[in-house]
Amino acid sequence: MTNPQTTTAPPGESAAQGDLPGYCRRLADQARRAGRRLATMTDRQRSAALRHIAEALERQAPAIIEANAKDLETGRQMDLSSAMLDRLRLDEKRIAQMADSVRQIAQQTDPVGRVVEGYTRPNGLRLEKVRVPIGVILFIYESRPNVTSDAAALCIKSGNAIILRGGREAIHSNTLLTQTIREGLEKAGIDPDSVQLVQTTDRAAVGELLKLEGRIDLVIPRGGEGLIRAVVEQSRIPVIKHYAGNCHLYIDARCDEQMAIEVTVNAKTQRPGVCNAIETLLVHREHARGGLLARLCEALGGLGVELRGDEAVCSVWPKARPATKADWDTEFLDLVLAVRVVDSLDEAIEHINAHGSGHTDGIITSDLASAERFTGEVDASGVFINCSTRFADGGEYGLGAEIGISTDKLHARGPMGAMDLTTYKWIVRGDGQVRQ
Amino acid sequence: MTNPQTTTAPPGESAAQGDLPGYCRRLADQARRAGRRLATMTDRQRSAALRHIAEALERQAPAIIEANAKDLETGRQMDLSSAMLDRLRLDEKRIAQMADSVRQIAQQTDPVGRVVEGYTRPNGLRLEKVRVPIGVILFIYESRPNVTSDAAALCIKSGNAIILRGGREAIHSNTLLTQTIREGLEKAGIDPDSVQLVQTTDRAAVGELLKLEGRIDLVIPRGGEGLIRAVVEQSRIPVIKHYAGNCHLYIDARCDEQMAIEVTVNAKTQRPGVCNAIETLLVHREHARGGLLARLCEALGGLGVELRGDEAVCSVWPKARPATKADWDTEFLDLVLAVRVVDSLDEAIEHINAHGSGHTDGIITSDLASAERFTGEVDASGVFINCSTRFADGGEYGLGAEIGISTDKLHARGPMGAMDLTTYKWIVRGDGQVRQ
Repeated sequence: MTNPQTTTAPPGESAAQGDLPGYCRRLADQARRAGRRLATMTDRQRSAALRHIAEALERQAPAIIEANAKDLETGRQMDLSSAMLDRLRLDEKRIAQMADSVRQIAQQTDPVGRVVEGYTRPNGLRLEKVRVPIGVILFIYESRPNVTSDAAALCIKSGNAIILRGGREAIHSNTLLTQTIREGLEKAGIDPDSVQLVQTTDRAAVGELLKLEGRIDLVIPRGGEGLIRAVVEQSRIPVIKHYAGNCHLYIDARCDEQMAIEVTVNAKTQRPGVCNAIETLLVHREHARGGLLARLCEALGGLGVELRGDEAVCSVWPKARPATKADWDTEFLDLVLAVRVVDSLDEAIEHINAHGSGHTDGIITSDLASAERFTGEVDASGVFINCSTRFADGGEYGLGAEIGISTDKLHARGPMGAMDLTTYKWIVRGDGQVRQ
Repeated sequence: MTNPQTTTAPPGESAAQGDLPGYCRRLADQARRAGRRLATMTDRQRSAALRHIAEALERQAPAIIEANAKDLETGRQMDLSSAMLDRLRLDEKRIAQMADSVRQIAQQTDPVGRVVEGYTRPNGLRLEKVRVPIGVILFIYESRPNVTSDAAALCIKSGNAIILRGGREAIHSNTLLTQTIREGLEKAGIDPDSVQLVQTTDRAAVGELLKLEGRIDLVIPRGGEGLIRAVVEQSRIPVIKHYAGNCHLYIDARCDEQMAIEVTVNAKTQRPGVCNAIETLLVHREHARGGLLARLCEALGGLGVELRGDEAVCSVWPKARPATKADWDTEFLDLVLAVRVVDSLDEAIEHINAHGSGHTDGIITSDLASAERFTGEVDASGVFINCSTRFADGGEYGLGAEIGISTDKLHARGPMGAMDLTTYKWIVRGDGQVRQ
């Protein structure tokens, strides 16, 4: 991703030099100790720390912007695209948003200590299943330094220690952000090792960390598919994957046609570069005859969307390019949309389950049976009826910030908030029961 | 584990010959198709299938016992220990218990379709988080053919397809059991490919199956630590691990002494070879002076338990062998117990968190503050107050049968029942909402 010669020497690089495996173990052990203490603190203490962190971020804004300027300079030397440089950039407004987000997380209900269920067994044993922090979380992410404070805040709120491994291109920003977060923790009397940044851009550090089964409890990679696949292949620690999405919208035979157009346009064009934008539109054959398909194509085409259609689409809308086989499996993340005419709901569901990535898929319908079958049979983290797939987001779900959107089925599925960073323990109380 | 020359040729071996990767993909794809149909069936249909399976097991008992006799013969040729042969053995009584267990699972509340939470957002979007089956589960296990019907029944109940990979030594039993289960499924109109056995004892099949990320959703290995480690190293599919347990019991300064003796004896001796039996006893120093430590040693020693103590223990109970460093980390699974005197609750918690395996740890205390701190600070799937660790079990927790006891923290922790074989999806209903 980067040429080492062109980057500024990252701060703290020396910390890890010489003994990389030892350095990584030390990070993990410090995180374990800090996390154990953090787990026993009250929500009042953890939330006070978050408010201190928000203040510190605001106070340190000028210095953070200065550090960020070094990263932007390196980024330009690395020939990052302007979109990438924009994601990397921090300014007053973005830092204020970061502080706001930390304060919002502070206000959320404490996920720790919630009794999930509880009952008494016939022998008098009283069981309680209680939510507790997971422990030590390794978060591996690319660009977007604002994610640093979101992820740290969600972990602090849920009583977990976090090891942050950001991208090489954001090392100056992330180093100062982490220092600022640690100052906030100390002010609240919390061990600053609850939040640590990997102080080297050496790629081998990731490999070393991923070996630390038993020392680190969970790995969350967030970034491009290449990064995530590499982490899954190397890790012996459980991973929750956050692949981007190949999302679908299906326009059923019976539907509100105006709604179909508005939702389709929104789901494709409101922000085409994100994972919850649609990549394929499926339209019932009724609408090829009835004219809705043409109107959909017109609305999308008018907004500059390149359409790639099957035969039926191309005959209704000759400006569409013929779709290739690969198009049905491609996440364009751009103003490009694959469009297919289907004969039935069954064909739509089959297409989605064959080509979808299990992220978010929607239907526009006024037919109750279609809605029920779609939600029952489409295998995705989010199944949406009569609304835009763009709502698949922690904030829109009301979870506060999110550490990512899980496309896995284990533990957490869809947007992951603070609650998803907890596990549970069984507390069993007796008065001397023994097993016969 | 075995010498191929001495084993009887397993049935169905030919099915997989030639193209092992293709055979494994076929198994997974058949499971996916069957699972998708199973997931949309009602609990009435799934539970009816379980009752048919229970009947079929009883009806086929003589044939199952005959097939099992071949496995026992092979097992003797393989020089399996008498304990292993006993685990492998099926008789009328055990088959009746298997059928009973399947019927009990049929009676449980349906885990599928449960609304975990639901709410309406300010923009009118209605969200529901609903439990759904995980999809395709690969279950890799050793010996104990009765686990075959338990695992299959839990998966059917929770709407999942299962691929069973049993031990080479149980292949004849497992083949007939799987046939019997599939007959029961067919009788209830359910696709028999919901339950499939890997029809080859070729070890390479496991490696091929573990590559099928996206085709298989979850791997559950159950067996020795070697098996589990090998699966974790190879798998790109999420794994829920079921390591055995290094369980502790701590006798606090203030406690009911008679209870302390009874619970310790039960937790160590009632069935020493299982994962929820204790391996280390921690005793507060008060009791070295007060005499309880000596009475504990006497009670245990009288039942043939070999004690391995620290200096304080050996001075009170000279028959104890001095404990080695390794003893604190050893799962004896036998009538052997490591015993240590600690100065405080803190020292006990520290010892447990350093040496425990996160399975189940208990305290005997009459002190409220000790109980609270122990349950709060010990990091284990089960923390027990004043009762035997032997209760860490799906049946004793009231979950019905268990597919294993997870020592992981992700997704499921502790005994795993049918509910733990589900994930969730978000169903989002709107009336045309688009994102601004």
